[in-house]
Amino acid sequence: MPLVACEVRGVFVATNNTTTVPLVILADRDDRILPIFIGIWEAVSINSAKIKEVLPRPFTHDLFVDLCEKFSITLRSLQIDSIDNGVYYAQLVLVSDRREEFLDCRPSDGIALALRADVPIFVDECVLSAAGQKSSDLPDIVDLATFLEK
Amino acid sequence: MPLVACEVRGVFVATNNTTTVPLVILADRDDRILPIFIGIWEAVSINSAKIKEVLPRPFTHDLFVDLCEKFSITLRSLQIDSIDNGVYYAQLVLVSDRREEFLDCRPSDGIALALRADVPIFVDECVLSAAGQKSSDLPDIVDLATFLEK
Repeated sequence: MPLVACEVRGVFVATNNTTTVPLVILADRDDRILPIFIGIWEAVSINSAKIKEVLPRPFTHDLFVDLCEKFSITLRSLQIDSIDNGVYYAQLVLVSDRREEFLDCRPSDGIALALRADVPIFVDECVLSAAGQKSSDLPDIVDLATFLEK
Repeated sequence: MPLVACEVRGVFVATNNTTTVPLVILADRDDRILPIFIGIWEAVSINSAKIKEVLPRPFTHDLFVDLCEKFSITLRSLQIDSIDNGVYYAQLVLVSDRREEFLDCRPSDGIALALRADVPIFVDECVLSAAGQKSSDLPDIVDLATFLEK
């Protein structure tokens, strides 16, 4: 099915009485929302990239980007192309010397890298149809930065 | 100064009444110990590599190794070559098409990658002289796996 360009709406934390779960929210131009639950470390890394934080030492995702630069590998895009039992599957699209390669990754890593390299994020229409939501359907969420300040 | 081959003795957690800090311990053949305090996420990743855990989805460090494989980049070694105000500085030594490149990294990322690629870890003698310890000097530590099971 076609790939749909999405933006990173933000990194949040969903909380209830017993659990706290970080999530990243993607949105397409029609405001269809794709919430993806992720680990706290990945949430911090995505947020760091989103706010263009300058860190004293390279994060693991920065290291990946640095490796690409050293060896003239271009990150073209991220594709989130399927969902199975609640697990999203994604691929990084990379090019070097006119050779295109796809690299299987978790969406959280892919988003952290796509934001750092400032490249588009695409979500397959089948994923949006299966897991897309309206903003009003989202659970109670708090912006990650606000949550960490508490 | 010369580079000294070191092994990863293990991943631990140092605890006292108020804090819990993960650390990875390197050791040279003369049993000089180099404790490096790291983040919990990096500790889990190093431990995962050390016990050769097979994960259903690639960790961020696995993604780095997968990228190297896709584009015929060989990780040769990790060098931990200086320490400044308690911060260790390290470099990954990478080779592609006979071209050698050095990539600045945090030791925690470097160790997680070196273990995955099964390549040597070297520590500069100046670092071991400055920060090396005897086993008996170590603080109270608990194996990470034991700590996480609690």
